[in-house]
Amino acid sequence: MAQQHTSRQEDDHKLKAEGEGEGEGEVISIEKAFEGKEIPSWRKQLTMRAFVVSFVLSILFSFIVMKLNLTTGIIPSLNVSAGLLGFFFVKTWTQFLSKSGLLRQPFTRQENTVIQTCVVASSGIAFSGGFGSYLFGMSERIAKQSGDTKLGFKDPSLTWIIGFLFIVSFLGLFSVVPLRKIMIIDFKLSYPSGTATAFLINSFHTTQGAKLAKKQVRTLGKFFSFSFLWGFFQWFFTGGDDCGFSSFPTFGLKARDYKFYFDFSATYVGVGMICPYIINVSVLLGGILSWGIMWPLIETRKGHWYSNDLDQSSLHGLQGYRVFIAIAMILGDGLYNFFKVLSRTLSGLFHQVRARNVSSGLPVDNSAPEYPKLSYDDQRRTRIFLKDQIPAWFAIAGYVTIAVASIVTLPHIFHELKWYHVLVIYIFAPTLAFCNAYGCGLTDWSLASTYGKLAIFTIGAWAGSSHGGVLAGLAACGVMMNIVSTASDLTQDFKTGYLTLASPRSMFVSQVIGTAMGCVISPCVFWLFYKAFDDLGVHGSEYPAPFAIVYRNMAKLGVEGFSSLPKDCLLLCYVFFGAAILINLIKDYSGKMGRFIPLPMAMAIPFYIGPYFAINMCVGSLILFVWEKINKAKAEAFGPAVASGLICGEGIWTLPSSILALAGVQPPICMKFLSRGTNTRVDKFLGS
Amino acid sequence: MAQQHTSRQEDDHKLKAEGEGEGEGEVISIEKAFEGKEIPSWRKQLTMRAFVVSFVLSILFSFIVMKLNLTTGIIPSLNVSAGLLGFFFVKTWTQFLSKSGLLRQPFTRQENTVIQTCVVASSGIAFSGGFGSYLFGMSERIAKQSGDTKLGFKDPSLTWIIGFLFIVSFLGLFSVVPLRKIMIIDFKLSYPSGTATAFLINSFHTTQGAKLAKKQVRTLGKFFSFSFLWGFFQWFFTGGDDCGFSSFPTFGLKARDYKFYFDFSATYVGVGMICPYIINVSVLLGGILSWGIMWPLIETRKGHWYSNDLDQSSLHGLQGYRVFIAIAMILGDGLYNFFKVLSRTLSGLFHQVRARNVSSGLPVDNSAPEYPKLSYDDQRRTRIFLKDQIPAWFAIAGYVTIAVASIVTLPHIFHELKWYHVLVIYIFAPTLAFCNAYGCGLTDWSLASTYGKLAIFTIGAWAGSSHGGVLAGLAACGVMMNIVSTASDLTQDFKTGYLTLASPRSMFVSQVIGTAMGCVISPCVFWLFYKAFDDLGVHGSEYPAPFAIVYRNMAKLGVEGFSSLPKDCLLLCYVFFGAAILINLIKDYSGKMGRFIPLPMAMAIPFYIGPYFAINMCVGSLILFVWEKINKAKAEAFGPAVASGLICGEGIWTLPSSILALAGVQPPICMKFLSRGTNTRVDKFLGS
Repeated sequence: MAQQHTSRQEDDHKLKAEGEGEGEGEVISIEKAFEGKEIPSWRKQLTMRAFVVSFVLSILFSFIVMKLNLTTGIIPSLNVSAGLLGFFFVKTWTQFLSKSGLLRQPFTRQENTVIQTCVVASSGIAFSGGFGSYLFGMSERIAKQSGDTKLGFKDPSLTWIIGFLFIVSFLGLFSVVPLRKIMIIDFKLSYPSGTATAFLINSFHTTQGAKLAKKQVRTLGKFFSFSFLWGFFQWFFTGGDDCGFSSFPTFGLKARDYKFYFDFSATYVGVGMICPYIINVSVLLGGILSWGIMWPLIETRKGHWYSNDLDQSSLHGLQGYRVFIAIAMILGDGLYNFFKVLSRTLSGLFHQVRARNVSSGLPVDNSAPEYPKLSYDDQRRTRIFLKDQIPAWFAIAGYVTIAVASIVTLPHIFHELKWYHVLVIYIFAPTLAFCNAYGCGLTDWSLASTYGKLAIFTIGAWAGSSHGGVLAGLAACGVMMNIVSTASDLTQDFKTGYLTLASPRSMFVSQVIGTAMGCVISPCVFWLFYKAFDDLGVHGSEYPAPFAIVYRNMAKLGVEGFSSLPKDCLLLCYVFFGAAILINLIKDYSGKMGRFIPLPMAMAIPFYIGPYFAINMCVGSLILFVWEKINKAKAEAFGPAVASGLICGEGIWTLPSSILALAGVQPPICMKFLSRGTNTRVDKFLGS
Repeated sequence: MAQQHTSRQEDDHKLKAEGEGEGEGEVISIEKAFEGKEIPSWRKQLTMRAFVVSFVLSILFSFIVMKLNLTTGIIPSLNVSAGLLGFFFVKTWTQFLSKSGLLRQPFTRQENTVIQTCVVASSGIAFSGGFGSYLFGMSERIAKQSGDTKLGFKDPSLTWIIGFLFIVSFLGLFSVVPLRKIMIIDFKLSYPSGTATAFLINSFHTTQGAKLAKKQVRTLGKFFSFSFLWGFFQWFFTGGDDCGFSSFPTFGLKARDYKFYFDFSATYVGVGMICPYIINVSVLLGGILSWGIMWPLIETRKGHWYSNDLDQSSLHGLQGYRVFIAIAMILGDGLYNFFKVLSRTLSGLFHQVRARNVSSGLPVDNSAPEYPKLSYDDQRRTRIFLKDQIPAWFAIAGYVTIAVASIVTLPHIFHELKWYHVLVIYIFAPTLAFCNAYGCGLTDWSLASTYGKLAIFTIGAWAGSSHGGVLAGLAACGVMMNIVSTASDLTQDFKTGYLTLASPRSMFVSQVIGTAMGCVISPCVFWLFYKAFDDLGVHGSEYPAPFAIVYRNMAKLGVEGFSSLPKDCLLLCYVFFGAAILINLIKDYSGKMGRFIPLPMAMAIPFYIGPYFAINMCVGSLILFVWEKINKAKAEAFGPAVASGLICGEGIWTLPSSILALAGVQPPICMKFLSRGTNTRVDKFLGS
């Protein structure tokens, strides 16, 4: 799924800016700088204040992720903002206590890592919970738009969602716990995102780093306020459909009909600033290709290729081309990357195992081992990492217990999903979880959504159309995605913990608590959106939840085959499926020029929802580009803070805005855009 | 009139920032820095390139001044932008020539002064020509709004306006030429604006100054482009009445009904940045007092104080209160300042003459006199200033010739104005011109519009209502204003020339050429506006020309008395007339606290047109204030450049915009603001 794709790419990009000097051969020792500082025991790393801060930030980031889920599905990495804000909150609190003489425990980087881990785990649920994809794709509203209510639907409800998430979200944690030593210490996988986060946290806790962090926080705060107030200001002018800045015909009314406009959303300007240039360019390119060229051309075939009297949102008309061509591209890209990462995983594993067999003289016992070849930093980190153990029997027992519990309960939630479907998933899951964690360590690319799609097709086809295969497939997708995504997240966190000398136990506990938080917070946030905005998930509305209909239609494809597609749509799908693979191949084999070739996954996103957000993202890119030209150092230090401020501010404005909507307070003014002719008619109408 | 008022205040303000170190007792010699540089002869100061640049800048500034005239009547000093742009153009040109080896004559500060003088003279006509006041107040359109077409009207036409301006604009020049030595050398009047300009020009021609000027020009250019493009962008959304950003209900629809909104005009943000804080605060205060309190209160008396079934723009209704209370305040303030400046002029003269009689040993011959008590700078300046003479007989002959010509021709243009009216004006004019030039030298305050109002009342009453007194009064106002305003302008220029070692002859020639340019350019620019915008001068339109109706009604008051005022309006007028004088008295006698007391003249402007531009101006103030808090030096160096860029950019956008309007190209989109209820009705109407 596109989210993970861009998110990981982003992390990769960020890494290049921040993670320099990292790696096996680093010269300057980081741990020497921290030598005098005592490392608290793993229990002391898990402070109450850390979890209070985590809770607050989890709510904040759940709102932001949910908003992004429901608008475009593009979710940039929010690690930097989480890190900055976590540091800011606890630091302010400890400084306050320290001044009043009540501080019992100083703020350590281990505690900071605990917060980071907890927030990432919690807000990760907002994504992997599928509120913008598989879970919402089950609802009647999406089924209606997809024109297949007869294939079954299950409307969201707070109780079953929370239950479902609690059942499936913890399995991933247990499945990778036994493997952490292999991944981190033996294989020395790089985990670029986790490493970057660790470097950020380490830097915060140096004197100079704290000073910079303070400035960054101030910048973030400024842009947060601006973005929040801007969102608030915009709200007043949205008293009706197509009113307000979000439908501003920046390039004219005709262009807006084809979704080319700048919608004044600070969020996506921020997203554009965080995402690498090539993502933004790809999205824009995809938008121009689809809404600028293809859809207008296909529209001229109206009456020939598809019926004249179809509803705008019918999948048998133009909308069908939009959805299915996007799916084809996403699947093509996903499949290519699945095989690419798989082959790298296998060859990597093969080399690792061979190398291990050769140098089998290394001690394997866990009692404070000495690795004479390692640098001071690595020695110290390895010692700490291996000090606190999580017994393997605990992990296995946990996995089996939860698996049994969910095999029993899941079919009660989804009647279409049988116990044997779940059992089969759980037999394969640990292997896939390991694959994903390993692949992510190599490439920083989590393929959770690809594994989810795999589950959609296999379980969906197995269950069959007449037995509610669509719902079974979507539910299976949820089970699978939750396992593999938490597995890779936790391993990332272990890497972060390794580099900040945090105990694996505290990491694990923090992740468990974070996941539990997420299982409650995310559904509640979604529920707020769902109740507040009546047109949630409707094409063209403020929150179209584009991937919900995409996921549902993928499930339908798996169950029903290609029968429901409009004319020539299948051919076009094949073309774009092939093109996605071809572009990836060219990208990988054109060497240095590869970075100038667009990403098919990113190109596919605007196919369905339109290119308007791509314009915002490109504006963000442009701002960053100009800033880098003027002052590169400053742009690199403060760019992410500005972007995070823009994203967080408008993101958190959705909280009061949805509360206002729930309370029935409607905006007082409509800022309307009419053509001159229509305006004359309206003026006459209003005058009479 | 308010324009001069704020303009002069502004200059005064600017002086404080830039003119430091100036004055009789200056320690560092400026002329020493220029010692090596040769001063070109007066003929060589008048280069072709200077006049080409002046011509281009004159057009630019005529557009800007005309736009300001026709929107609010508040005109800030554009000297800094004229100076910067003039320097930029000639410098670029000479550098280009110098590189190609074709440069015959280097760019001197004398030449720069010539450009400055020419541009100021030319764009001064755009103000003193009365296109936003007396001249346009004669038109049928204003007469209709004023409800008194029976009192006579004269619609503008290109031919008679150009003729009229040529006849009356040159008299002022001749009337002060003989007095320049007395004002500049003997009385050593300070002329703050002229001095500030001279310091600006001198600084440009030092190496360091040129570097700063280059940076300032770049800043100006950036904001110029921004403001121009912003104006262009806004245009697209104005396809109808009350459409676009200029009627954006920033504070809600109800507030907009009372003209409280931010209209996104970059011009007035720039004006706010140039005007001193107290002006902006006064304007806002006046706006709140009138549109926030008084008009809503008077509106509740509808049906009691004034008839229910009156037209919105009838002067017998609410509009009457707006216009006449504004006039009362303007007259009160004008009268107070007239007597204040007059008394200072007389006492100053008295002291000067007595001092001169005492130290009568000074040589009065013009052949390179030596003033042993003077500083090096003053000696050198005085020598140069007295080198090139303009004979007194030339000035007197010029004055008499032009006076005779205009006594003969003016009654042919305005049949209501008799030859003896003109003769009387011309007998008193030199005295008044001298008074104004002298007062301006002391206080930097040109009272041209006050003298104009004096002419309105006296000549209007003399001619009498039945003999077209209204038109006669307005025409007399024009004659008087042109004489006294050019007189003070030219004396300012002589001071600038004195300080930059420019020859008085070249100053005079430049002023003559500039005035001639202005007599052609300004009417043409006005004509473009007049033809392009059908609702020019209509209350509530884009260009309401507020002072046109104010001037016409002043003339009517002079002719008819107070008979036409609605109930209790006269009482309110007395109150505000008295309040204006009282506030001025308090301001003058409260010592240091005086600068915190608002200016009645500035307060009166929004009474008629509403406080929306005051909000923009306060935004400009706020920006400057915050900027000064962050970086005072930078704000002072670049603030005027930013402001000029904002003003000039949108100002020059009016050129293409009026051409588009003339060509019949109308904007394609209307950005409309409807209340939610109305929007629902409109949606239903459009849907059916």
